[in-house]
Amino acid sequence: MEKLSETQIPIHDLIRRRWSPRAFSEQPVEPDKLRSVLEAARWAPSSRNEQPWAYLVATKDNAEGYQALAGVLMDSNRAWAGNSPVLILTIAHTRLEKDGQPNRHALHDLGQATANLIFQATSLGLATHQMGGFHADAARERFGIPEGWEPVSVIALGYPGNAELLPESLRERESAQRRRKPLGEFVFSGTWGHPASILDSTETK
Amino acid sequence: MEKLSETQIPIHDLIRRRWSPRAFSEQPVEPDKLRSVLEAARWAPSSRNEQPWAYLVATKDNAEGYQALAGVLMDSNRAWAGNSPVLILTIAHTRLEKDGQPNRHALHDLGQATANLIFQATSLGLATHQMGGFHADAARERFGIPEGWEPVSVIALGYPGNAELLPESLRERESAQRRRKPLGEFVFSGTWGHPASILDSTETK
Repeated sequence: MEKLSETQIPIHDLIRRRWSPRAFSEQPVEPDKLRSVLEAARWAPSSRNEQPWAYLVATKDNAEGYQALAGVLMDSNRAWAGNSPVLILTIAHTRLEKDGQPNRHALHDLGQATANLIFQATSLGLATHQMGGFHADAARERFGIPEGWEPVSVIALGYPGNAELLPESLRERESAQRRRKPLGEFVFSGTWGHPASILDSTETK
Repeated sequence: MEKLSETQIPIHDLIRRRWSPRAFSEQPVEPDKLRSVLEAARWAPSSRNEQPWAYLVATKDNAEGYQALAGVLMDSNRAWAGNSPVLILTIAHTRLEKDGQPNRHALHDLGQATANLIFQATSLGLATHQMGGFHADAARERFGIPEGWEPVSVIALGYPGNAELLPESLRERESAQRRRKPLGEFVFSGTWGHPASILDSTETK
């Protein structure tokens, strides 16, 4: 199933093709591909080159580790994400390595590393779905995440599956139209709220 | 000038080619390309589809707007970034649209949108350099950024320039080796600090 972005302006095909399905195939993800998506994350830029990110990976062939990670998902997410062959917990280092002071770019930079991961996954034909809906405190306790590190999201990753096999309520969401704000609502110039003049030739409705 | 990532594992060429130079050409960026990088940001995923991001764009052909944005950079960054034809201030919406409660994924999701922007720029042959070093309070005041929104970074964007024209101290940094932690330091499985077994066939030193 494809669900291309209805772009106002042409963009790279891998960005256009990425979306967040709930239907995953049972087919395992090859370890080479899994290493590749993590290597892509590794090369993200970060403030002061802190690289304030960590990933805890669970694959379905390790039932204990997989169930532990699936167990911290909110029920509504576990209902579908528990079928994906790979779950990845993303974690931000919210303190600077040098002196333990707060790193205000930690979550931002984790987001960029994860975007690299997602992009690489898309290029390998893998589907991804990031979830904010999980129990962060339970994850911290279950996996021994230390103070100064913050669990931020869980990624479901695998090959695309058959949406017809989803429960009916999720099947409807799977085919719902993708929505985004028009550019004129968030691209400004000169001052806050003033649409950028470079948008003038764009349909912004 | 190219500065390819020395990857442990093959990754997509556009991720491999991205780096953060300080040398930019004076050549202006075509409005079509600028719109394209912003459209790419638009299609990033976000928690609850909040799309908690905004971009304030300044191009050198508008001297007043450009100087205003260059003016909030720290001196050490303005020294080189003030030559890039485009500067973009990135801003996170740290409160939920629905009820004004804190959105703990705001900076993470802004990071993902900006990663899309950077990726699209790289695909168009543009260079980018993100900076955390700017005066956020001055930016808030100068551009009228409201409460609930947080200035996070400034991106310099343009065509690659000639590193030989940089001051000597920056020239050295321009050619310095790119460094990243090995995968084994931040990819775990089972529990915190336990290197993931999928890394076993990887050189992790």
